[in-house]
Amino acid sequence: MINERMRDLGRRRSAIRDIFEYGLLRKRELGEEAVYDFSLGNPSVPPPEAVNRELLRIIEELPSVTLHGYTSAAGDLSVREAVAGYLSKTHGMEVFANELYMTVGAAAALTCALNALVQRGEEVILLSPYFPEYRVFAEGAGASVVEVECRKNDFHPDTSAIKKAINEKTAAIIVNSPNNPTGAVYTEAELSELSEILLDAQKEYGHPIYLIADEPYRELVFGGARVPFIPRLYHNTVVCYSFSKSLSIPGERIGFALVPKNVTNRTDVYNAIAGAGRSLGYVCAPSLLQRLLPAVLGMTSELSVYDENRRLLFSALSKMGFSVVPPEGAFYMFLRSPIENAAEFCLAARKYELLLVPSDSFGVSGYVRISYCVDTEMIKRSLPAFGALAKEFGLNGD
Amino acid sequence: MINERMRDLGRRRSAIRDIFEYGLLRKRELGEEAVYDFSLGNPSVPPPEAVNRELLRIIEELPSVTLHGYTSAAGDLSVREAVAGYLSKTHGMEVFANELYMTVGAAAALTCALNALVQRGEEVILLSPYFPEYRVFAEGAGASVVEVECRKNDFHPDTSAIKKAINEKTAAIIVNSPNNPTGAVYTEAELSELSEILLDAQKEYGHPIYLIADEPYRELVFGGARVPFIPRLYHNTVVCYSFSKSLSIPGERIGFALVPKNVTNRTDVYNAIAGAGRSLGYVCAPSLLQRLLPAVLGMTSELSVYDENRRLLFSALSKMGFSVVPPEGAFYMFLRSPIENAAEFCLAARKYELLLVPSDSFGVSGYVRISYCVDTEMIKRSLPAFGALAKEFGLNGD
Repeated sequence: MINERMRDLGRRRSAIRDIFEYGLLRKRELGEEAVYDFSLGNPSVPPPEAVNRELLRIIEELPSVTLHGYTSAAGDLSVREAVAGYLSKTHGMEVFANELYMTVGAAAALTCALNALVQRGEEVILLSPYFPEYRVFAEGAGASVVEVECRKNDFHPDTSAIKKAINEKTAAIIVNSPNNPTGAVYTEAELSELSEILLDAQKEYGHPIYLIADEPYRELVFGGARVPFIPRLYHNTVVCYSFSKSLSIPGERIGFALVPKNVTNRTDVYNAIAGAGRSLGYVCAPSLLQRLLPAVLGMTSELSVYDENRRLLFSALSKMGFSVVPPEGAFYMFLRSPIENAAEFCLAARKYELLLVPSDSFGVSGYVRISYCVDTEMIKRSLPAFGALAKEFGLNGD
Repeated sequence: MINERMRDLGRRRSAIRDIFEYGLLRKRELGEEAVYDFSLGNPSVPPPEAVNRELLRIIEELPSVTLHGYTSAAGDLSVREAVAGYLSKTHGMEVFANELYMTVGAAAALTCALNALVQRGEEVILLSPYFPEYRVFAEGAGASVVEVECRKNDFHPDTSAIKKAINEKTAAIIVNSPNNPTGAVYTEAELSELSEILLDAQKEYGHPIYLIADEPYRELVFGGARVPFIPRLYHNTVVCYSFSKSLSIPGERIGFALVPKNVTNRTDVYNAIAGAGRSLGYVCAPSLLQRLLPAVLGMTSELSVYDENRRLLFSALSKMGFSVVPPEGAFYMFLRSPIENAAEFCLAARKYELLLVPSDSFGVSGYVRISYCVDTEMIKRSLPAFGALAKEFGLNGD
C-alpha cells in the first residue's frame, strides 16, 4: 500500500521549494530581472576555479575504471586520509580516516546519523527556528521531534529551555551553526554551556545523548565570528558536513559524517552510521566527487560577495524600519514580519515581486527568511520594492 | 541509543564485501596476478569514451553555477526529457519526463520505491537466490521478506510457488532480470504468467501489488536473450535502473525510478517515491552525472568482453565437471557446489587463491557465485586453479 507519509511529503513540496517554483513561473512571465527571488539557499557565487580544473585533471589522468568505480562504502581511503589531515590541521584535534564516512551531502549524513543513533519512539531536540527538513529526517528515523525555541532577541540557543526539554527519551539534539534560517553563529561559551547540560543529562539518564552538528555553513562567517569545533567541547558529537555551500557545488552531493575518537563506543556509533547508509541505499558517495576533494580542501568560493550582500541588505532594510536579526554567518537573514501572520506578509511582498519565505515551516511564527546568496545587482534592484513594502506596512524608515 | 540493526549492518559487511577485502589483503601479500578474485560485481571494462568526453565538455562549457547547482529533486527536467525520449523509443511505450525520478543509483531507487510502497508489517516477495541487499532494503522499509525459491534447474521464476506465497499482506515483489547472482533472463512468457498471477491476487485482495523491476543489467544479455519491458506486461510496475553496469560507472551513483503511466494512482505512487527520497535524505541525484546522461543514452561499455569471459569460463568449468547454470545475462555465473556446504567449498577454493562467494547470503544453499566482470587474462590464469579444485572434490572432467 502507498505509504501516506511519503506520499504527502512528495506531494507537498517544502514551502521553500514552492515559492522557488512560483518564482520560476513569474520570471518566465515578467523576465528574470523583474523578480526578486530570495527563496532558495542555492549559492550564486561560482565554485573556486580549482574545482573544475581538478575535475578535468582527474578525468583526463586517472584510469577510468578506478575513477568511476565503486569506492569502499565509507569512501575512498586516500580521500578520507586527506580530509582527516585537513580537519586535524584546521581544528587542532586529531581526526583519523576511519572516523570519516563519506556521504551524498549533509542531508545523507544527517539521515544516516539519525537512523543510526535514534530508536523508534525516542526524541530528537530541534532548536527553532530550524531547517524544515530536520523534522522530515528525524521523523523518518522514527523519532519524535521536540522543539525548543531559541532566544527571541538574537536566536542563539536558550540553554535553560534546552535543559528543561531533555528527558529520559532524549536521544539527540541537532545543532546548526552557522544557522539556517537565522544566520546566528553560536559562541564557544554557549556551546560549552550546552555541553555541561548534556553531560549532566547523560549522567542523570544513564545513556548517551548525541549532539549532531550540521555544519554546511561552517566557512560562511562574517565580521570575525568564529565557529568552534564542537567535538572539542562535547564528546558525543557527530559532525555532518557538506561541501555544497563552501565550494558552491550543492547539486553534486558530497559531504561526510565524522565520528571523532572521543565519542562513547565510537566503533559502534561509526558502524551504525555505516549500517544506516547501507539500509537507506547509499552504496558510496559519488566517486568522481570524492576524488575531487583532496585538491580543494580548505578552498572556498569568493565569499566576500555574500558579505557585501549581507551588509547592503541589512543596512538598507534596517533603514527602512524593518527589524532584522544581525546575521553572523551562513547566507540567510531573518526579518521580523511587521504583522504576526508572516505568510500574509509574504503574499503582500509578492505584489512587489519579492519572494520571501515565511518562518512557519521553520518552527516559529512572525518572521521571514531572506536568502541573500544572490546576485548583488538583484539586491540593489530589489530595494525600491522593499521600500514600497515597508511603506505599505507603515514602517518608519530614516 | 544506538540502533542495533544499523550497528550490525555496519559491522557485518556483506559476505561479498568481506571476501573482496580478503582478496585485497591477499593481493598485497602475493601480488595482483596471483589472486583470482571473482567476488565483486565491479565492471572491469572501461566506460565508453563518450562518457569522459562528455564530462569534459560539460565542465568546460556549462556555467559552473548551473552545472554544480541543485537540480529539482526529481532531476533536471531536460535530463528527464532525454531519458524519457530514449525509453519511449527503445521500449515502444510512451514514457514522460514527469514519470521519472532521478536517483543516486538503483539502490536509492529501490529504497525510495520500497519506502514509498510498503507499509510496516506488509510483505515483500524476493525470488531466491537474490541480491542480499534486497533484504536489507526491504526490512529497512519496515517490510517482512518472503522468499520464494526459483526453479532449481535454470533459476527462472517458479510462478506457482509465487502464487502460493501471495497473501493479503503482500505489497510488492522484486524482479531482477537479468539476474544477480544466477545470470537468468526471464522470458516474456514467464513475466506474462507472473502478471496474470499478480492481477488475480490484486483482485482477490483488493489492493495493488507492485512489481519492482530492478534492471541494472538490462543491457548485459548474451546469446540473443531478450529483456522484456515489464510495464508493458504488468501495469503496477515500478522500474529501478542504474547506469552503473551498462556504462561502467558504478561509483558515480546515477539511475532512476520510473512510474509508468499505467500504474494505478500513478501520481500518488510517484509522489510517495519523491517523498521517500526526501525522507531518506536524497536531495537530488548528483548534478554533473545527471547532465552527462543525455549524450550517452543507449551507449554501453564494450560488452563483448563479458560475453567472451562467459563462454570461456562456462566451457572450461563444465569440462572440468562442475555443474554450472548457463548464464544468459548480467556478469555472474552460478555454480553448484560439489558439497552441500558452499561456504566450506569456498574456503577450499581459497587455497588455490580462487575467491568465490557462497550462495547462502543470496538465500539459497549449495551454490557459489562467480563474478566474471574481470580481466579475461585473469580467467585464463585461473583455470589451472579451478582444475585443481575440481580434482580435490573428485569431479570427473573430460
